[in-house]
Amino acid sequence: MQIDFNCDMGESFGPYSFGADEELMRYITSANVAGGFHAGDPHVMRKTVALAKEHGVAVGIHNGYRDLVGFGRVEMSVTPEEVHDELIYQLGALREFARYYDMEVQHVKPHASLYMTAARDEEISRAIIEAIQKVDPDLVIYCMRASATYEVAKKMDQPVATEFFADRDYNDEGQIVFTRKVTDELDPEEVGDRVVRGLTEGKVTTVNGNDIDIPSDSVCVHSDTPGAATLAEAIVRKLGENDIEVRPLGRAEQRVGSRE
Amino acid sequence: MQIDFNCDMGESFGPYSFGADEELMRYITSANVAGGFHAGDPHVMRKTVALAKEHGVAVGIHNGYRDLVGFGRVEMSVTPEEVHDELIYQLGALREFARYYDMEVQHVKPHASLYMTAARDEEISRAIIEAIQKVDPDLVIYCMRASATYEVAKKMDQPVATEFFADRDYNDEGQIVFTRKVTDELDPEEVGDRVVRGLTEGKVTTVNGNDIDIPSDSVCVHSDTPGAATLAEAIVRKLGENDIEVRPLGRAEQRVGSRE
Amino acid sequence: MQIDFNCDMGESFGPYSFGADEELMRYITSANVAGGFHAGDPHVMRKTVALAKEHGVAVGIHNGYRDLVGFGRVEMSVTPEEVHDELIYQLGALREFARYYDMEVQHVKPHASLYMTAARDEEISRAIIEAIQKVDPDLVIYCMRASATYEVAKKMDQPVATEFFADRDYNDEGQIVFTRKVTDELDPEEVGDRVVRGLTEGKVTTVNGNDIDIPSDSVCVHSDTPGAATLAEAIVRKLGENDIEVRPLGRAEQRVGSRE
Amino acid sequence: MQIDFNCDMGESFGPYSFGADEELMRYITSANVAGGFHAGDPHVMRKTVALAKEHGVAVGIHNGYRDLVGFGRVEMSVTPEEVHDELIYQLGALREFARYYDMEVQHVKPHASLYMTAARDEEISRAIIEAIQKVDPDLVIYCMRASATYEVAKKMDQPVATEFFADRDYNDEGQIVFTRKVTDELDPEEVGDRVVRGLTEGKVTTVNGNDIDIPSDSVCVHSDTPGAATLAEAIVRKLGENDIEVRPLGRAEQRVGSRE
Repeated sequence: MQIDFNCDMGESFGPYSFGADEELMRYITSANVAGGFHAGDPHVMRKTVALAKEHGVAVGIHNGYRDLVGFGRVEMSVTPEEVHDELIYQLGALREFARYYDMEVQHVKPHASLYMTAARDEEISRAIIEAIQKVDPDLVIYCMRASATYEVAKKMDQPVATEFFADRDYNDEGQIVFTRKVTDELDPEEVGDRVVRGLTEGKVTTVNGNDIDIPSDSVCVHSDTPGAATLAEAIVRKLGENDIEVRPLGRAEQRVGSRE
Repeated sequence: MQIDFNCDMGESFGPYSFGADEELMRYITSANVAGGFHAGDPHVMRKTVALAKEHGVAVGIHNGYRDLVGFGRVEMSVTPEEVHDELIYQLGALREFARYYDMEVQHVKPHASLYMTAARDEEISRAIIEAIQKVDPDLVIYCMRASATYEVAKKMDQPVATEFFADRDYNDEGQIVFTRKVTDELDPEEVGDRVVRGLTEGKVTTVNGNDIDIPSDSVCVHSDTPGAATLAEAIVRKLGENDIEVRPLGRAEQRVGSRE
Repeated sequence: MQIDFNCDMGESFGPYSFGADEELMRYITSANVAGGFHAGDPHVMRKTVALAKEHGVAVGIHNGYRDLVGFGRVEMSVTPEEVHDELIYQLGALREFARYYDMEVQHVKPHASLYMTAARDEEISRAIIEAIQKVDPDLVIYCMRASATYEVAKKMDQPVATEFFADRDYNDEGQIVFTRKVTDELDPEEVGDRVVRGLTEGKVTTVNGNDIDIPSDSVCVHSDTPGAATLAEAIVRKLGENDIEVRPLGRAEQRVGSRE
Repeated sequence: MQIDFNCDMGESFGPYSFGADEELMRYITSANVAGGFHAGDPHVMRKTVALAKEHGVAVGIHNGYRDLVGFGRVEMSVTPEEVHDELIYQLGALREFARYYDMEVQHVKPHASLYMTAARDEEISRAIIEAIQKVDPDLVIYCMRASATYEVAKKMDQPVATEFFADRDYNDEGQIVFTRKVTDELDPEEVGDRVVRGLTEGKVTTVNGNDIDIPSDSVCVHSDTPGAATLAEAIVRKLGENDIEVRPLGRAEQRVGSRE
């Protein structure tokens, strides 16, 4: 059994450092690289791609709203057309750094509020996937299983990776509870067990105490969750103990098929 | 005889319109597309590439300093490494829109203060050309003949296009006099004659009244020069009257050789 | 009978010119000066305050969301606390330029999406008015009569000016229909008559053809409505023909009382 | 004997934390509050002013170039007029938060590259001081004794505070060696002794080993110098041991006169 492990990376900006990228890169297999709109800058982007290459980690574009001060966590009524154009811009920037280091771009993962907006808005999801299909149909789109993004991707035959969020609560509909605040410190062992159960049993317990199905292609930890690197270590260790191999999904043409 | 005709394009931003792109695109053969740092945004970039395609105009990245309020005309002591990384970022963004419209990127032309800084600073020029050679060695770099950029490009075997500025004054060293202000209205017939003479005789008269050699691969008009479209019309008309064909340079692999 | 006439001003930015400020300033009595978040910059702000002074026009802060590319027209889920802090910042900037030219700040008018959000959100309205009451309780807050902003202002005893939008359609609830697009060209005579009727009869006809009450302290025209200066001229001329004097509201301590 | 102790504060931005403001505020007497152009945002500015008030620390505007990614450390050929307007804008923003907390603004201290540019450029210094004299002549301008800013301030009768930089090297001309990089860790005891000597003897040893005169009204430590809070503690302790009282300068009308 295999699983991808993704994390947001490259969210430093100019003089400002953010996230334990160097530590986390040792555990993850796919890096969602900030595109410069919600965080990141060209220098940070290059360093992040170089770091990913060094660790054999695949890269994808983490495209966010143009909202630096709110870190892309502010909901914005940006039109589908603007989301589409801003994705192409950020994706191209990343692809050029990937080319610089002789790598390929593996995936697209919208950031924070854009991710959540797309999850409930078919038009935004379609704008994202149309952009992908126009420039590089082999890119995998990351999303929640319980989302409009997933439904639209399936309808449009776009390769998709469903995510298991290790550090977020789920509601009974299978959606994570989005927050603009940093979450509380979590217990690494509990988080690791939760992930293992999510992958082996395909279940997660919601905030209401119910068990729901959660078919997943990738585990996600947020780099600004307190103790993220410790969580990542525990997750990878427990996955190993349960004979689950952690490795990148690969681009569509290389994939062995999603778990569904 | 042939000549390329380039112009800065895509410098609108959000609600703000800038330059007579639609009119100018009818006359030029190479569009320097603003990269989003000194001007432009993703939506404007896409529209500009689409417009270029419609008119058979080649596109290149017009990479500027990160200075929106100063329109990239402020000199900035940005390090060579930052210039290098910011070029890759902006170039990638443009390349993705080119890919979107099934086009190729033809060239790199630094904008305003960055152009002038590179012209006198070998290190900055080298940073730009190293970035190009790493990601796409067939890109042509635009510069003045009398510049460090030209010298470094020659030394590094990078395809180069030297420019004849139709709407700027020259000093005796063959450099244009850079200005942060919009220039005065120019007489289209005079400008056209000046260009024709520059190409047929290879000479231009400087601000001091001297004639200097000005070997050129491309004519440039700035989109914010008052009456830019009228100037462009006059230039193309006069070039035609003198049997000089206006056409894009092409990427390095397609070029028939520069005029030198 | 008297009425105030307000217009958004100072929305140029760096190299980008926006709105016919010089022409409009001849007709209006209150200028809503862009605070630099959705539009405007320090240089533009100073020039705008100078122009207002020259024409005897009162100034107020036009505070918008931090959204330059969307011109503050994008809805943003910014917290009340952030709206509060961003208002104080922008208000202070304007007050310093007013001080520079020996003027006072008269009013606060939130811009575009922030105006519309406040109109339906008590918490956002309260955050705005709390900021005002903390730093300068004599500032007048501009809003629609049919808005949460009006209700909260009344509850908090904050001086308020209700607006009649000359260039926007009304729904039956007395709210304007907000648009991110530039409106169509309007007939100046019709607009002038509509304003005169709005002030003399206190009525406006909605998009559904119904007449509703529209008690107003100030008329508003948007500077980017096509032909705004022509509309403004017609409005002022028709008001004059109907013996309605156009003059600034004044700060709370100078006001003769709102029309209600 | 008395001395002021100033430090850059409020340089966090949105999600990005910067500097040990809370610890440092316990030692310093004057806070240079980032104006939002090189760092800081409205929320951070309000929190910083509140923190200063809580600790009885005076506030001044720390106005920088509009260069977030370069943290105001990039040299920019911004015109004197723009520097003038941008100072007024940032100063007004700070003054409004001071008003919010019933405080006064004490001083102006340009940041990083703007500070160094002003130090060698009379025109920029004059633009800054003209702005101050127009809006609030009692503001104290901080500068190096060996600077154009000092000379211009004296010529224009502007109250000035000369600085002793505890964490920077001096050249023989009495100017600090500016760096875009973070400095190495310094020994707190040595730094404290250096400050005490600077104040009691009025001397500092330069990078060339020479002793020069360094008359000072205020000691400065940079908040991003490694171990800044430890340095600050050592400085205040050693000053106390030498009977030098640390207290704010006060605005011009409250000052007992500079040390010269």
